[in-house]
Amino acid sequence: MAPERPRTPYDAASLVALAADVFTRRGYDGTSISDLARAAGLTKSSIYHHVEGKEHLLRLALERALDPLFAVLDEPQAREGAALARLEHVLRRQVEVLVRELPYVTLLLRVRGNTETERWALQRRREFDAVVAGLAREAAAEGDLRSDLDAALVARLVAGMTNSVVEWYRPAGQRAERGTRPGVQHLADTVVHLALDGWRAR
Amino acid sequence: MAPERPRTPYDAASLVALAADVFTRRGYDGTSISDLARAAGLTKSSIYHHVEGKEHLLRLALERALDPLFAVLDEPQAREGAALARLEHVLRRQVEVLVRELPYVTLLLRVRGNTETERWALQRRREFDAVVAGLAREAAAEGDLRSDLDAALVARLVAGMTNSVVEWYRPAGQRAERGTRPGVQHLADTVVHLALDGWRAR
Repeated sequence: MAPERPRTPYDAASLVALAADVFTRRGYDGTSISDLARAAGLTKSSIYHHVEGKEHLLRLALERALDPLFAVLDEPQAREGAALARLEHVLRRQVEVLVRELPYVTLLLRVRGNTETERWALQRRREFDAVVAGLAREAAAEGDLRSDLDAALVARLVAGMTNSVVEWYRPAGQRAERGTRPGVQHLADTVVHLALDGWRAR
Repeated sequence: MAPERPRTPYDAASLVALAADVFTRRGYDGTSISDLARAAGLTKSSIYHHVEGKEHLLRLALERALDPLFAVLDEPQAREGAALARLEHVLRRQVEVLVRELPYVTLLLRVRGNTETERWALQRRREFDAVVAGLAREAAAEGDLRSDLDAALVARLVAGMTNSVVEWYRPAGQRAERGTRPGVQHLADTVVHLALDGWRAR
């Protein structure tokens, strides 16, 4: 879902966007409802008009990353066909979600786990990674992935490579150094080619 | 350099180790000298006996990561021979430094850049990454790396994959979930094989 344009100075969606940004910069623990109110130019009570509190805002922000990631796993191309093709589809779509929902995926990747909502998000990340690792095991069993590598370790490294994009990718509308705003299809192609085929010329 | 055993309850090296840990957990901006003194069980003045202040501690901690990383680039195998072999050597040794100096590399990768020391560390990271990207360009010119991929983007992704190890690696002495403490040679081999040869069976 694309961010709605604010109808009033702040509606719930733009408050969630602001919260994701502040949580990422200051850390969730280091951010109070007063900090959020100040950043939004709102009173605390008008924030409580939109959401139940800080942890509710965190949950809404994390859902903006997790819902589309899990939606990918329900797509037909992720469910039908050879495991390697399904894995390739999931990797490609994961990069697309990461770029489209960049602030929310960034927050998701920084969450550490002191509250129920953070632990829930970490658990959902593990579930997603486990599906990818399972596809890899299936693809290895089908003879399409190398069996001389440790599949669980490789799955971790590929997830790390994919997720590292949040460290340097600059979305449209932000000042970008050279090379920090590749087109999303070019980026997704490169991730998939590198992960599956490697860098070496043949 | 291996960490020295403390001669007194805290010498400079163990204070740097403590600071790296606290900076990583709380953020550099969010940590005061009082916080460090409390964590060490020292008075502020005994901290100033060892170091000039908070930013000096940060610099010493970051040098623990940066000095061995740059030492790798001076090794003969990083300087002589085909560019692809040099690149492979640097990647492998980078993983080894990352595991050996894990708390310091973790801090280095979290630094954002509000102080002179943080900007210096970011600049040194960029210099290191530029050497790796340069090796990749040379290897592509020598016909050993694929020319159908964007070398700068691939270098970023490979750095992201390598650095992502700090997110889950658990060193000896810490409680480790299954798969979070691979042997360092196995880990380095897997990073190099995946980056260069990819996951696909042939």
